[in-house]
Amino acid sequence: MARITPRSVNYSEWYINIVTEAKLADYSPVKGCMVIRPRGYALWERMQAVLDGMFKETGHQNAYFPLLIPESFIKKEAEHVEGFSPELAVVTHAGGEDLEEPYVIRPTSETIVWSMYKKWIQSYRDLPLLINQWANVLRWEKRTRLFLRTSEFLWQEGHTAHATAEEAQEETLRMLEVYRRFAEDWLAMPVITGQKSQSEKFAGAVDTYAIEAMMQDKKALQAGTSHNLGQNFAKAFDVTFQDRDGKQSLVWASSWGASTRLIGALIMTHSDDRGLVLPPKIAPTQAVVIPIYKNQNKAAVLAYAEKLRDSLKSRFRVECDFDDNNSPGWKFAEWELLGVPLRIETGPRDMEAGKALLVRRDTGEKIPAAFDEVPARLEGLLAEIQGGLYDRALGFRKANTVGISSYEKFLAFFNGEDGGFAECPWCGDGACEAKIKADTKATIRVLPFGNEERAAGTCLACGKEARHLAVFAKSY
Amino acid sequence: MARITPRSVNYSEWYINIVTEAKLADYSPVKGCMVIRPRGYALWERMQAVLDGMFKETGHQNAYFPLLIPESFIKKEAEHVEGFSPELAVVTHAGGEDLEEPYVIRPTSETIVWSMYKKWIQSYRDLPLLINQWANVLRWEKRTRLFLRTSEFLWQEGHTAHATAEEAQEETLRMLEVYRRFAEDWLAMPVITGQKSQSEKFAGAVDTYAIEAMMQDKKALQAGTSHNLGQNFAKAFDVTFQDRDGKQSLVWASSWGASTRLIGALIMTHSDDRGLVLPPKIAPTQAVVIPIYKNQNKAAVLAYAEKLRDSLKSRFRVECDFDDNNSPGWKFAEWELLGVPLRIETGPRDMEAGKALLVRRDTGEKIPAAFDEVPARLEGLLAEIQGGLYDRALGFRKANTVGISSYEKFLAFFNGEDGGFAECPWCGDGACEAKIKADTKATIRVLPFGNEERAAGTCLACGKEARHLAVFAKSY
Repeated sequence: MARITPRSVNYSEWYINIVTEAKLADYSPVKGCMVIRPRGYALWERMQAVLDGMFKETGHQNAYFPLLIPESFIKKEAEHVEGFSPELAVVTHAGGEDLEEPYVIRPTSETIVWSMYKKWIQSYRDLPLLINQWANVLRWEKRTRLFLRTSEFLWQEGHTAHATAEEAQEETLRMLEVYRRFAEDWLAMPVITGQKSQSEKFAGAVDTYAIEAMMQDKKALQAGTSHNLGQNFAKAFDVTFQDRDGKQSLVWASSWGASTRLIGALIMTHSDDRGLVLPPKIAPTQAVVIPIYKNQNKAAVLAYAEKLRDSLKSRFRVECDFDDNNSPGWKFAEWELLGVPLRIETGPRDMEAGKALLVRRDTGEKIPAAFDEVPARLEGLLAEIQGGLYDRALGFRKANTVGISSYEKFLAFFNGEDGGFAECPWCGDGACEAKIKADTKATIRVLPFGNEERAAGTCLACGKEARHLAVFAKSY
Repeated sequence: MARITPRSVNYSEWYINIVTEAKLADYSPVKGCMVIRPRGYALWERMQAVLDGMFKETGHQNAYFPLLIPESFIKKEAEHVEGFSPELAVVTHAGGEDLEEPYVIRPTSETIVWSMYKKWIQSYRDLPLLINQWANVLRWEKRTRLFLRTSEFLWQEGHTAHATAEEAQEETLRMLEVYRRFAEDWLAMPVITGQKSQSEKFAGAVDTYAIEAMMQDKKALQAGTSHNLGQNFAKAFDVTFQDRDGKQSLVWASSWGASTRLIGALIMTHSDDRGLVLPPKIAPTQAVVIPIYKNQNKAAVLAYAEKLRDSLKSRFRVECDFDDNNSPGWKFAEWELLGVPLRIETGPRDMEAGKALLVRRDTGEKIPAAFDEVPARLEGLLAEIQGGLYDRALGFRKANTVGISSYEKFLAFFNGEDGGFAECPWCGDGACEAKIKADTKATIRVLPFGNEERAAGTCLACGKEARHLAVFAKSY
């Protein structure tokens, strides 16, 4: 059963073992592309359902734009093309003929979306235009890792158009907050929200904001981004509107996205050496009933297990494991590997006593409960697990976050074994940022909100007056 | 307001007018590819939700396979490559480098799926494997029409693997029946189910089954297909399993798909010269409340309309049109164009009398109702509209379906103005089928189930003994 390398032995191998052994994803014959298997896709479906509801509550509608983008479109916004060119996959012939103009497979859809917004936006009455798309995108990557970085991935991308700069900025921050709530309330993954430095922003954005989480190896993972695009794409595609006074103005924009990378983040936030650990609110299966029986009592125990499952299924996502080929012990380990938050054991003695044994995936704690009490206990335990996972992850991040203002200590922190998040005063100069990256591989993950008063002091790298507090970390 | 060309003037233009004026889809700058706008995508989301539920009820799970397929994979199944080669879009370079082997963008995923099934299937215990994928596919088309035939489209494709030929055939027919139920119960679109002739089957299938519907121009539209793939793809990718006796056998397969084409079918089944007509069960909005007011009573009427909407929203998909820029008359026409099944008018007199006026989109009938009775009336009317649309479409198909056994009459039927569905005895020979197609453009849409006894007589084209009853029609 030792299919999972412990984190302490090889963290990267541990991660990949969990992805493949829990059958979340598999390698495909296409370079850098994965297959998302049913257990992984079920997680993505849960994430989609929750996020999609949050997008609709905030006034967004879904639409679908073409996969292919004329190559010339990508070139219309200077920073955009510079950022994405190295990663493009290009279609040069189709239907047996060479194409007059090659198409690229979308790495992101700003350009094709804004070519359509030009058709759809004439007046202030057409604004705001709040559209989201669920789609696949392709960015040719040299080094890939299942879920975290693959050439093709699934995501959602919101593209909004506004009459004023203020509204675009409000939207940008509103959607960042949606991502924060989703990460913290649903994935039990604490995140730091804030602005990216100019060197780390989206190619084509004026400002990029992100949620950043700490993984169990103390590296940072960017789990969602929201961009204020200013008028950059409106300029590139000449999208103007007539305002209330009859004046023509360029449209303001935002875009924001989150992807199947979130599954990687989820795994690396909560899982352990026995396998996947899933927060109950996002788990496709919240509890599994495992009957324990011998031949002489099999029918009765299975019936009891089914009755228990039926008493739960209207309120919880619950299934039974009635497989005859494997022992209860094997099943316990298997369902732990798969990350199901609670296991419910029902043996002949439980049946006779009208009880069941609830076992927590996160702590291993065993809780006996009378049959009628199981629904209430389940509800309470699932909430406890959800909260406990968040608290544990937040505790881990806090324990591995330090304030550093001396460069010597900074070098020791990132070049030593430990690492983590370092909160440091920074002057705002890209040259200091570049030097720090060259010296340590640490980058500015985010300039966290609400820390303006902590930006006092002098820049970590150059000693000039600090303008920001920055969170530095090595990252995925 | 005359934005829609009447069907009697130009049927094709009528169809395109509805798609664009109801903002379901738009032309994109990418050849043959459309943009699905929010109102069109909302329809697709409803279709997805219902179909996805039906797939899960029948034991299927969703997964995701790569967009790109190595060119050599497509060539492994002889009929498959012959069928799809002319439509492939090819990626020749990516990440700034020429690819060693080109990739094609999936026109369908059998080959990439079966390359993975080889990894996942070893034993009879791994079977059946019942996987569905929601995805975009690309088939380069010379002549395109919004929703009906576009180079890129959205669909679902089921890919199943079985231990026996019988199970694969059962699955093939089970999913055909799912499509039939979906078309008839949800889209109110009567369909004929049956088998395709060998010349019309899927490239790589042993047998193809389909649901076929009659559009308002009396042409046929194939709205979903289910294929028995036999062992063709198992052979091509060497997928064997160890059966209960320890013997290695090739795996049996099915695949089945339905696409955004269904939106085109839906439009052409029910809509009229005033615009889209949607069956209530699939309509994203089932009823729209339109307040009628003057300045002096505006606040009260809007409050009344809101109260009415609030009394409905837990049971129905309902919205209010509070736009101040347009007159009630303009709104009536607009919501008719958009296909919302019921409009609810609330004017000052309705308010004073504690009433509302319900207006059916399909018949124009006006039904006054007391405030408290509106929910019950709405429920009844929506069911009546759903049933009425189905009955009307079925009546239309029956009125335009004839049994023909003389070739002279057949030629007159299809080369005259009327056309429709012709049920004819056929010998089963592809040569007769080809001759008929050359003479009339009519093809065999389906060999309908349950008509074996009606296959008596002699073949329409050659006069030899008939082996099938075939439904001939011109088609989309």
